[in-house]
Amino acid sequence: MRIGVLTSGGDCPGLNAVIRSVVHRAVVDHGDEVIGFRDGWKGLLECDYLKLDLDAVGGILARGGTILGSSRVQPSHLRDGVERAKEHVAELGLDAIIPIGGEGTLKAAKLMSDSGLPIVGVPKTIDNDIAVTDVTFGFDTAVGVATEALDRLKTTAESHQRVLVVEVMGRHTGWIALHSGMAAGAHAIVVPERPFDIEELTRRVGERFEAGKRFAIVVAAEGAKPRAGTMEFDEGGKDIYGHERFAGIARQLSVELEGRLGKEARPVILGHVQRGGTPTAYDRVLATRFGWHAVEAVHRGEFGHMTALRGTDIVMTPLAEAVETLKTVPDERYAEAETVL
Amino acid sequence: MRIGVLTSGGDCPGLNAVIRSVVHRAVVDHGDEVIGFRDGWKGLLECDYLKLDLDAVGGILARGGTILGSSRVQPSHLRDGVERAKEHVAELGLDAIIPIGGEGTLKAAKLMSDSGLPIVGVPKTIDNDIAVTDVTFGFDTAVGVATEALDRLKTTAESHQRVLVVEVMGRHTGWIALHSGMAAGAHAIVVPERPFDIEELTRRVGERFEAGKRFAIVVAAEGAKPRAGTMEFDEGGKDIYGHERFAGIARQLSVELEGRLGKEARPVILGHVQRGGTPTAYDRVLATRFGWHAVEAVHRGEFGHMTALRGTDIVMTPLAEAVETLKTVPDERYAEAETVL
Amino acid sequence: MRIGVLTSGGDCPGLNAVIRSVVHRAVVDHGDEVIGFRDGWKGLLECDYLKLDLDAVGGILARGGTILGSSRVQPSHLRDGVERAKEHVAELGLDAIIPIGGEGTLKAAKLMSDSGLPIVGVPKTIDNDIAVTDVTFGFDTAVGVATEALDRLKTTAESHQRVLVVEVMGRHTGWIALHSGMAAGAHAIVVPERPFDIEELTRRVGERFEAGKRFAIVVAAEGAKPRAGTMEFDEGGKDIYGHERFAGIARQLSVELEGRLGKEARPVILGHVQRGGTPTAYDRVLATRFGWHAVEAVHRGEFGHMTALRGTDIVMTPLAEAVETLKTVPDERYAEAETVL
Amino acid sequence: MRIGVLTSGGDCPGLNAVIRSVVHRAVVDHGDEVIGFRDGWKGLLECDYLKLDLDAVGGILARGGTILGSSRVQPSHLRDGVERAKEHVAELGLDAIIPIGGEGTLKAAKLMSDSGLPIVGVPKTIDNDIAVTDVTFGFDTAVGVATEALDRLKTTAESHQRVLVVEVMGRHTGWIALHSGMAAGAHAIVVPERPFDIEELTRRVGERFEAGKRFAIVVAAEGAKPRAGTMEFDEGGKDIYGHERFAGIARQLSVELEGRLGKEARPVILGHVQRGGTPTAYDRVLATRFGWHAVEAVHRGEFGHMTALRGTDIVMTPLAEAVETLKTVPDERYAEAETVL
Repeated sequence: MRIGVLTSGGDCPGLNAVIRSVVHRAVVDHGDEVIGFRDGWKGLLECDYLKLDLDAVGGILARGGTILGSSRVQPSHLRDGVERAKEHVAELGLDAIIPIGGEGTLKAAKLMSDSGLPIVGVPKTIDNDIAVTDVTFGFDTAVGVATEALDRLKTTAESHQRVLVVEVMGRHTGWIALHSGMAAGAHAIVVPERPFDIEELTRRVGERFEAGKRFAIVVAAEGAKPRAGTMEFDEGGKDIYGHERFAGIARQLSVELEGRLGKEARPVILGHVQRGGTPTAYDRVLATRFGWHAVEAVHRGEFGHMTALRGTDIVMTPLAEAVETLKTVPDERYAEAETVL
Repeated sequence: MRIGVLTSGGDCPGLNAVIRSVVHRAVVDHGDEVIGFRDGWKGLLECDYLKLDLDAVGGILARGGTILGSSRVQPSHLRDGVERAKEHVAELGLDAIIPIGGEGTLKAAKLMSDSGLPIVGVPKTIDNDIAVTDVTFGFDTAVGVATEALDRLKTTAESHQRVLVVEVMGRHTGWIALHSGMAAGAHAIVVPERPFDIEELTRRVGERFEAGKRFAIVVAAEGAKPRAGTMEFDEGGKDIYGHERFAGIARQLSVELEGRLGKEARPVILGHVQRGGTPTAYDRVLATRFGWHAVEAVHRGEFGHMTALRGTDIVMTPLAEAVETLKTVPDERYAEAETVL
Repeated sequence: MRIGVLTSGGDCPGLNAVIRSVVHRAVVDHGDEVIGFRDGWKGLLECDYLKLDLDAVGGILARGGTILGSSRVQPSHLRDGVERAKEHVAELGLDAIIPIGGEGTLKAAKLMSDSGLPIVGVPKTIDNDIAVTDVTFGFDTAVGVATEALDRLKTTAESHQRVLVVEVMGRHTGWIALHSGMAAGAHAIVVPERPFDIEELTRRVGERFEAGKRFAIVVAAEGAKPRAGTMEFDEGGKDIYGHERFAGIARQLSVELEGRLGKEARPVILGHVQRGGTPTAYDRVLATRFGWHAVEAVHRGEFGHMTALRGTDIVMTPLAEAVETLKTVPDERYAEAETVL
Repeated sequence: MRIGVLTSGGDCPGLNAVIRSVVHRAVVDHGDEVIGFRDGWKGLLECDYLKLDLDAVGGILARGGTILGSSRVQPSHLRDGVERAKEHVAELGLDAIIPIGGEGTLKAAKLMSDSGLPIVGVPKTIDNDIAVTDVTFGFDTAVGVATEALDRLKTTAESHQRVLVVEVMGRHTGWIALHSGMAAGAHAIVVPERPFDIEELTRRVGERFEAGKRFAIVVAAEGAKPRAGTMEFDEGGKDIYGHERFAGIARQLSVELEGRLGKEARPVILGHVQRGGTPTAYDRVLATRFGWHAVEAVHRGEFGHMTALRGTDIVMTPLAEAVETLKTVPDERYAEAETVL
C-alpha cells in the first residue's frame, strides 16, 4: 500500500511520535510505502512531499515539533481544495491519507472523506477538547509544563506575599487549567465553561489571607471570562492604530484582584512554552499507539474514522462524531477541583 | 463522621496527594474529622495516629513519600490482627477506614471488610498491575523517570558503541518496561509475561548492528526471565555464607549478549529512583481524585469497595474483584511495542 | 555565639540552602545559637524572630522560597532604622547578623556595619550583577529555567514558522539573557548594556529566513532598549486612568519585527517562573558554601564583609566594594554569544 | 585556515556544543574550513572524516553524545600513531587539530604537539579532575542528574525506613559525590581521596537513627574504598570462570551497614545515566566558550595549549601542565560538606 501522512494546525508534543509510528508499522510490518506531505494540507494541495523511510524517522520520537512542518491551510477554505486533493491522491497512487490534526483538520478530513477519499484521522490537540477520545496526546505534556511552572511560582508568590494569576492555554475549554491547577494545588481555577463571578473569586482568595496564608495562586484558562456585567472586561485585539493591545485574562484579573483585595497581584502568562518541546512518556506512548492503529485501520479499509482512546484501548470512531461537539469540563470534574483548591 | 486513613507497602509517588485530598474533601466539605495512622496497618494495630487537619496536609501535594509513614505489616499476618483492629476502630469511634496500598494491603482490606469493618480502599502501585482499574497513580511517574533515564542512556550507548541493558521495576508484570521502552524507543523489551528466547533476542539486537547502527538499548523488567532451558539463569539470593549475590536480569543479559554478539554490553539498574520523589501532574490528579471519591464512598456507605479509574471516570469496584487477578501485559499491547522497537 | 540571620528582597532559589547551612555550621560545629528574623530587616526592626535549630531547617535544602519570609523594607529607608536595629541586637545579645540579600540589602548591610553592627553579608540575586563575586546563587537556576523554556519554544517556533521574542529577567544587566540565549542557541540576544539597533536586528533575523530557515528566536532581557531614536518605545507604567499598561520589550519587539519582516512574530514573557522553585545542584552547593563561610567569618570576627566566589574558592570581600558597581556584560562575552547566534 | 576537530574518550554532555561552537566561530567569523574526524583519534589515523559546515551542526547544541563518534584509541598506543597522524595532517592540509577529550586524550595531544603538530586541546571529563581548569563541561550535568536521583531516593528511603547507599561516578576523584551529596543533603559521603573508616561511618549513620530519624542516604564515589584492614573489600573483576562478579562499593557498603546497624540497607548504582543526555545550561555555555576560544587560539598560533576556565575567564594553559596532576577533592572542601551532612 501507499500511504500519505500530514500534520496540520498548531504545534503539539507527540506529532513526530505519530509519524514515526506510522512509518514503522506500515513499512516494517506491512511492507507499505509512506510519503509525508509538507506543511499540512498545503503539501497535499501543492503535491509537495518527501519519502518517509526508517532513516527519515530516526531519532525523532522524543523531539517536539513535526519533521513535516505544519500550516493552518484547510482544503475546505479553497474553492477547489477537495478536487485538487483528489487529483493528487490519484496521481500519487495513494491508498490512504492519514491527517494528524485538531478540530479544523478533522473537519477538513471529514469533508474529504465524504467526497470519497480514503482517510484515517489522528486527533491532535493540547487542549484535550475532542469529545470522542478520553485524551489526546500533547495534553499531558502541556499540563506537565504548566504544573512545573506553578510549582515554581508558589514559592515566589509566598516569599513576595502576592497573588499570582497564571494564564494557561485553553481558549474554549478549561482542561489544562483544571488539571494543572489540581496538580499544583492552585487556590482558584477559572475556565471558559463557567464564567466566573469576580466577587466570589475575590472572597475565596481573600479568605486565604484572612486565614493567615501569605499568598494565593489563581489559574486562569486564557478563554476564561467574567460573568456578564460583573467586571469590566477587555477582549483584547487591536487598538485604533492597529496595534496589538495585549489584554488577556491574567492581566485583567490581577489588576482587579489587586484593587479589590489590597494585595499585590501579578500576572504570569505561560504561553507557547506549553505546546512545544519533548513530549512526556505518556504522550509518546499514546501518540505511538495512535499511529500504529491508524495504519491498522488503513489495512482494514476502515476509512472515514479516526483513532481514539477509550479506557486503555485504542478504538476507531467515525470522523462525523469527532467533530460534532467540543468536550468541555463537566460540573463534576470542576467540583472535584474546587474542594482541594 | 470520623475517618481513619493509612498508607501501607512500598513508596509510590502520589500517596501524599491522596491523604491531602481525603482531608480536604472530608474536613472542608463534609465537616468530618480525619486521623492518620502511622506506618500503615501497624498504626491501627497499635493505636498510633495523629490528627489530620488542613495544616497537617499543607504543602504535601507535590512531595514524594508519605507523611504517615508506611510498613509492610499486614493484619492478616497476625493471629489477632483483625480483632485488634476492630477494637481500635470502636475505641476511636471511627466510621470508616481508608487504607491506601497495593495488592497485599487490598487483600488485608478485604479481610477486614469481610469481618465487618467499614473499609474503602485506594489502590496504589507503581507497577500498574491491579486489574480493575485502568491505571494506578505512581505508574506514570515511574515510567517518566525510566524514560528520562533511557533518553540519556541512548546518547551514551551510541557514543560508546554499546549495548545497554536497562533494568526497570516490575517483578510480576512488565508495564513499566513496556511503556518506558515504547516511550524511549528501546530496541528490545523483555517482560515477565513472556519468557524471552535468548537467541531471538540476540538476533534482533544483532540485526541492528548489521544494519549499520552503532548501539542498542534493551529494556528488561526486573522479573523478566529466559525461556526455560535456553540460557543459564541465576535467580539471585544469598550465597552459602548468607551474602547477597547481586544477580539480576540486566547483569546476566548483558554478559550473555556481549558473549553472543561480540559487542560491549553493560547493565544499568535504575532501581529505587523509579518509586520516589515528586509525582507527575498526571499522578497528582489521579491521586487527588481517588482521595475525593473515597470520601464520597464513605459518605454513601459504599464499603468493601475501592476507587478505580475507568476511562475518565472514577468508579467504585468491589475489593473482592480487585485482588482476584493481576493485570498483565496482553499480547496486543506487546505487539504494538514490538513494531516500533 | 548568638547569630541572627535574615533574608531580604525578591525570591531567589538557594535562600533556604544558605539558612540551613548557617544553622548546621553554627549549631553543630560551633555550638552557637541561631535565630531567624521574619520578613527581612522588618523582623529585626520589629524584633520578630524564631529560633533556628536543626529541626527547623530539616528538609528545606531543595525547597524554593525562604522559610524566614522576605520583604523589601530597608532600615535605611526609616529615620530610626539603624538605631532600632542596634537596640534589638543588644537586647537579643546577638554577636553577629547575617543578612542574605541583593544590592539594596547589601547597601543597608554596609550602612549598619558602618554604624558599628557586626555584619557578615551573603549576596543574593538571580541577576548575577554583583561585581565582586564570580557568580551568585539563584542565577544558575534562572538560566536553567529560561533555557528549558527556550528549548521548548524552538520546536513551536519552527512548526509555526514564526519569530518568537522571549523576555527573560534582567532589568539592569543581561546575564540571564546572555547565558540562556547561548545555552539554547538563540538567534539574537538583546541586553540593557547595549541598546540595540532595530534595523540591524531586523537584518540579522531576516537573513535567517532568506537562508531558508523557518523560524527565529530572539531573547530579550526585560531591561533591553532600542538605541535612542531608532524605534518608538513605550517604557510601560500606568495609563492616565492609573491602569497598568503592560508594555514590555518582548511585546514591542514582536510587533516591530512582524511589521518589518512580514513574518508572524509573537512575544513570550517568562516572568516569575525564573525566580522560584527548586534550586539547581549548582546553586545548592554555592548557597551551602556561602552559609558555611559566613559563619566562619563571624567566628573570625571578619565583619563588614560578605562571601564571594572567586574561581573555586569562597573568599570574604568588603561590603563597601560589593555595592560600588554593577557587574555588567562585557563586550567580550557578548562577542562570544554573537558568533554562535 | 583548515581545522580538524575530534572527540575522544567516554561520553560527556557538551561535546556537541563544543563542535558546533568551533564550526560557528571558525566558519562564520574567520571563513575557515572545518573537518571532523570520526571516532576520535581513530578517524585521524585512518583518515576518516566529514566536512563540518553550519548545516552539519544544526540542532546539536542541546543533544548529548557526539555527532563525530568517539573511541578509546590513543595514537600513543600505536607504534606509528604519531607518524601516521602527521602524514594525514600534511595530506589534508590542516593548520590545526582540536582534540576534545579527557586525561588520556590530552596526554596524546601533548605527545603529538611535542612532535610538532599544531594542537589546541579542549578538556572534557564529567569527573572534573583536570587540575588546570576550575571546571570541565559535563560535570554540572552529571552532578545535576545525580542530585535529582538523590532527591527522589530520599522520600523512598524515608518511607521504607532504610539506608540507601548510592554509587555515583568517580573512579579516582570524588567531585561528583561531593557536589551531589552536598546538593541533596546526603548524610555521609565517601570519596577515593579519603579511604573511609567503616566504624566511623557506621557510627555517623547510626547516630541519625538514634536521634529519631528514619532513614539515611550515603553517597559513594565508585572509587571510594575502606581504610586498609578495616573491612573486607572486593575490588570486583572476573571470577575464576571469567564471569564478571559485579562487586562495587555501594553493594558492599550496604551489606556491611545492614550487618552493623541492623537496619535494612540497599544499594543504588546510578551508572551511565550520569554521563549522557541533554547538557545543563551551564555545561552548554562552558562548552560553547571552550570551542570559541580554541578557534581563537588556533588563529593566534597558540599551539600546545588547551582551554581552561579560571574564574569567569577562559584562558589558555599549556598541555604539559594539564596532564601533570589530577585535581582531587581538598580537605577544606570535604570539611564543608561534612558539616551539613
